[in-house]
Formats: sequence, C-alpha cells, structure tokens
Amino acid sequence: MKQPHSKAGRERGELALLVEIRQRAAHAASLGQKGGLRLGIGDDCALLTPRRGEELAVTTDLSIDGRHFRLNWHQPEAIGHRVLARGLSDLAAMGARPVAAFLSLGLPRMLTATAPGRRRAEPRTWVQRFLDGFLVLAEAFNTPLAGGDLAESPVTVADIVLIGAVPRGRALLRSNAKPGDLLYVTGALGGAAAGLARLAQLASPAGPNPPRIPKRLEELLAPHLYPQPRIAQGLWLQRRRLASAALDLSDGLSTDLAHLCEESGVAAEVDAAALPIHPAATMEQALHGGEDYELLFTAPPAARLPRAIAGVPVTRIGRILKPRAGRPTLTLIFPQGAQPLKPRGWEHFS
Amino acid sequence: MKQPHSKAGRERGELALLVEIRQRAAHAASLGQKGGLRLGIGDDCALLTPRRGEELAVTTDLSIDGRHFRLNWHQPEAIGHRVLARGLSDLAAMGARPVAAFLSLGLPRMLTATAPGRRRAEPRTWVQRFLDGFLVLAEAFNTPLAGGDLAESPVTVADIVLIGAVPRGRALLRSNAKPGDLLYVTGALGGAAAGLARLAQLASPAGPNPPRIPKRLEELLAPHLYPQPRIAQGLWLQRRRLASAALDLSDGLSTDLAHLCEESGVAAEVDAAALPIHPAATMEQALHGGEDYELLFTAPPAARLPRAIAGVPVTRIGRILKPRAGRPTLTLIFPQGAQPLKPRGWEHFS
Repeated sequence: MKQPHSKAGRERGELALLVEIRQRAAHAASLGQKGGLRLGIGDDCALLTPRRGEELAVTTDLSIDGRHFRLNWHQPEAIGHRVLARGLSDLAAMGARPVAAFLSLGLPRMLTATAPGRRRAEPRTWVQRFLDGFLVLAEAFNTPLAGGDLAESPVTVADIVLIGAVPRGRALLRSNAKPGDLLYVTGALGGAAAGLARLAQLASPAGPNPPRIPKRLEELLAPHLYPQPRIAQGLWLQRRRLASAALDLSDGLSTDLAHLCEESGVAAEVDAAALPIHPAATMEQALHGGEDYELLFTAPPAARLPRAIAGVPVTRIGRILKPRAGRPTLTLIFPQGAQPLKPRGWEHFS
Repeated sequence: MKQPHSKAGRERGELALLVEIRQRAAHAASLGQKGGLRLGIGDDCALLTPRRGEELAVTTDLSIDGRHFRLNWHQPEAIGHRVLARGLSDLAAMGARPVAAFLSLGLPRMLTATAPGRRRAEPRTWVQRFLDGFLVLAEAFNTPLAGGDLAESPVTVADIVLIGAVPRGRALLRSNAKPGDLLYVTGALGGAAAGLARLAQLASPAGPNPPRIPKRLEELLAPHLYPQPRIAQGLWLQRRRLASAALDLSDGLSTDLAHLCEESGVAAEVDAAALPIHPAATMEQALHGGEDYELLFTAPPAARLPRAIAGVPVTRIGRILKPRAGRPTLTLIFPQGAQPLKPRGWEHFS
C-alpha cells in the first residue's frame, strides 16, 4: 500500500479509501513498533525487525465472494473479521505471535461508494464496515495493518498476508507427530458448520443484502461469523514445548487430521465419545465441518496438558499410531467397534 | 499454500495444479535455504530466518484481469513475469535482496483445465504457462516460491507478496531526499508505455486470445511484457550508502517523483534534455508512462555515481529543491524556459 494520493488511475472514492486506511492503520502503529513493525504503509515496502533469535512465519489466504463468503449472506464486519481470522489462525497453528498483516482488496466500485439513496442513519460504506470488523480483530491480537494493495475488480476478493515471529527452531510443525503421541483439540467442534447451516436458512437466496441476525441467534452464529483464532493457545504450547505437531482446523477434523498424518508419516485413531461436539452441532459437522479454526495438536503421553488454556478447553480425542498396510490412516472408535474415518473435506460455498 | 491433496472442496484440476506448484517450487528450495527460507510450501506457514542484523522488507501487489493485464492481450508467460516483476521492483527500490515470494491465484476454471480440443503440440494449460514465466524470473533472482493460495474465481486475480532482507536501518526510503540532492534514474524511460501502445495495435479487440508477437517486435515490446527489476542496482546503492532516497517507477516519472517529494517534504526540478528517453518512446511516455520499473533515486552532490551499475545506465535528470510557496512542487526545465510538471499518473487498462 503505497501513496494514497495523486495517482490518476484511481477513482476519487478509491483515493479517499486509501487515505482512510492509512490513517486507521497508523492508529495501530504503536502496537506494531513494539512487536517488530518498524515502517508501515507509505513506502515501497514495510520493514519488519524480528527480535534476536526469532524467525518469521508467513501465511497467505485468498477469500473470494461466492466461495469463501457471500456478500448477500455475510455482513461486511463479519467478512472483515473472517478474512483476518483465517490468517491469524495459521500463525496460531505455528505457535507464532502476530507481527503484521497485509491486506489486498479487489472491490467492485459499488462497495467503495456511498449509495446515493443511503439513509443518514447508516452512512458507512461496505468497505468501511469491512475494515471495522477487520481492525477490531487486528487490535485485539496486536496485529498492525502494515500494507497491502487496492484495486477495482468485478468480483470482491481479499488476500490476507500474516507475518508472525517465533523463536528459531521452535515453530509447531505438522510433521513431527510420533506413534504413541496423544491427540488433542482446543474448544468445540462443528460450531462453525452449524452456524453456517442456520445462516443459510436466514439468508434470502435472491436478495442482494445479508440478513440481519436476530439477537437470540447471535451466539449460535458466532462460531461461523466471528471465529476466534487460538493465538494464546498456540503460543502457550510453543513456549512450553508441549506439542509435537499442530495445525488449525480449517478444512474439518477428518481432512486436517489426514494432513497431519501424511506430513508426519503416521496414522491416527479418534475416540468418537471423546469429541467435544459443539452443543448446536451434529457428529457429522464435528467430524467434517470446516472453519472451526481450533487447534489440533499432538503431544507425547508423558506431557501434562491442562484442561483449558487461557479459558479455552483442551480435550484429548485420540492417539497417533504407526501406519500399517491394510489399516486405514484414520480410524473412528465407537464403544461398539471401529470404522475408517474418511477425509470428507470442506467445500465452503462452491 | 497448504496440502495439495485430499481436500474435497478442490477440483481435480486444482489438486493437480497444487501438486505441480509444490513440486516446481521445491525445485528452487535449495536457493531459498541459503537465502533465508527455512520451510516452504506444506505447513500452516512458511518460515524465514533472516541473517543477523537484517530486517525484512515486505510488499504486496494485486493484479487483476482487465486492469493490470488482459488475458486477450498478454501471453500467460508475460503475465506471470509481470506479476513477479512488480513485487521484485518494490524490493529493489528498498535496496533489499529477495528472500521469498508468495503467490495467491484466483482463476476461472477454464484456465486450469486443458481444453478438450487442444492440439497435441501445445498441451500446457494457461496456468502452467503463467508459472513458466513466473518461475523463470524467480530463478533468475534467487527468489523461491514459498507459499500462497489458490481458489476458483470468476475473474483472474494474482496477488504477489515479496519478502526481502536488508541490513537494519539501511533500507532506501522515499522520505530522506534533501534540498541540494541530485536526481537520478536507471535505464530508459517510456519504453513500457511505448511497448504497450504497440501491443494494443496488435491485439484484436474482440478476440479471446492474445496476439503472437512477431520476432521483429519482441525487442520493442520487451520493456512492457518483460520488465527487468533493478535488484542489483538497488543493492549496489544500498551497500555503498550512496542514495538518500529511492523508489521504483511504477506509476510514471511525474507521479512517482511527486510521491518522493511529498514523503521527503521537498520540491524537484527535472532537466527535459537530460531524460534518457527510450528510443521507441515519446517525451510524454517518458514523463507519464508507467511500469518502466526503473529506479528513481537521489544522492548528495558529493556522491560519485558511475555511468552504469551492472550494465544498466544511470542518468542524472535533475535536482531536489526546497519547497517554496507559489512554486510548483515539480518543474520541468527546457532550454527555452521552465514549466510545471503535473503528476499525470498511470491508468493501467481501466
């Protein structure tokens, strides 16, 4: 995100938006300097200074209207929150602390303009409300917006880059799970899928605007609309060297556990009865629903894990096994017997 | 860029593409490890380990079909090259060495599929050819592809993230130009705009496919289709501490010089007769044409600049002045007198 001024190729609304983003981002720059952001928006690049002995973790996530969110399902604040939460969750899964975020936005012109017939009571544009949701979460996790890019686009796209820091050699990888390790998960599973299913009922299929969420449904929809990245939990595990492997649950337990097993060259079994299923969710949603953004991690049997980390429950849900020919990589154990657990993945909205 | 396998939400073509990108990126990982990339594609984040005393420079650039390139004007190799060159040029402008690139691609399904009626002689998909152009330039500049994201999109978008490293406190900023400093530029100006104008004549306005470039026009079109990031020149200036301020010419000399003046709180004058105008370009194109990706920099009068750095000419084109009320920020000096130089910017294709 370079100069917000005097670029003839930019529309007036786009210019005003760049100025606003730069001002709002500067507001958070003081957090940034302490954390390692030395220079934010305004030059050719941002400059980051990691602390001695740290390395940097980098992740990017592309969100596109119709695939990762829907303009006519999601309020702009929720889209802004979700875009940033996806990236922060990747940092959490590495045990990294956030240093800076970069946001590239491609927006149809109507989303940056104030509608001509707009009521006085609601003067904010779509993109201002998107930034509201984005920046509230950024502030909560000490993550300055350090740059990005902006362009007109026929479809709404948001690419988020998160940069975090972690002591050298201490990042939580996917590839270090060992046979005998126990399998844990933070929080509850399936809540995001349950919330999405309820949102789909509320949304009008043809209408251009997202539904207003009734007060009584806010809690039910929160895991989908406002997922909480588990930064504190990832840092806790990393600092105590308790986890042998970790990732975040973005595609669903069955798919993400398969990823962990493939990267570590192991198999795993999951105790169905132990799963911390969200009260509103089904077993199916807990096993295969995506976007819970909880941490899935392994630890040696001798490791003593607490029941909760920073107020978020930690539940033992299974164990890591040696891979064996003829046995499925993932097994789901019921009291009455076992069955293969097939990765069923997560299709967002496509 | 996480797991290329078993994600049910991905199409078969998309899966194959992720596997291919991971393989092709791994090929370049050996360069990466020497440069500071410790872990590339495959986990929640990539890990970068800067050398002692270095800080990291980060830039993102969003390219969208119809605005920054056109599928029916540009061969896919040229689009891949241009996407990466935009980011590398930002690193060059900071005097940073490239450490890693991250690429987020949103693609219509037709670009990842092999067309059913495709001739045997040309079996590569659009996205493979895009990667050809991207990875050849990446290899030339020791820049491993360390991650990114991939999603189906109704419009083709590519967001590029470049991370570079520079000794702490030594980055070339836009904000340090001082009155009395002299103004320099690398290479020639206006060549990209002249090439684009010629390409527009070749392209069929209605046809879906970009024109083949006749051999005799390749050199003329090269500054537009295959711009060369001035990494070596930026590093040279940074290491010798010769430049007081620098940026890259992406929006055109008149616009980018205005940026430099605003960030430094100075004015500038440009000698029209000194401008290194590209042989195919007009004065207008040299002053206002964008995407030359040359470096514009300032240096104190005592600094001794060579005539060329690593084979690329360096030309003194003007000087930095104190801002004064009633005088325009930018002045263009002709033998017969002076006139204000107004930032005229660059509109890409919009």
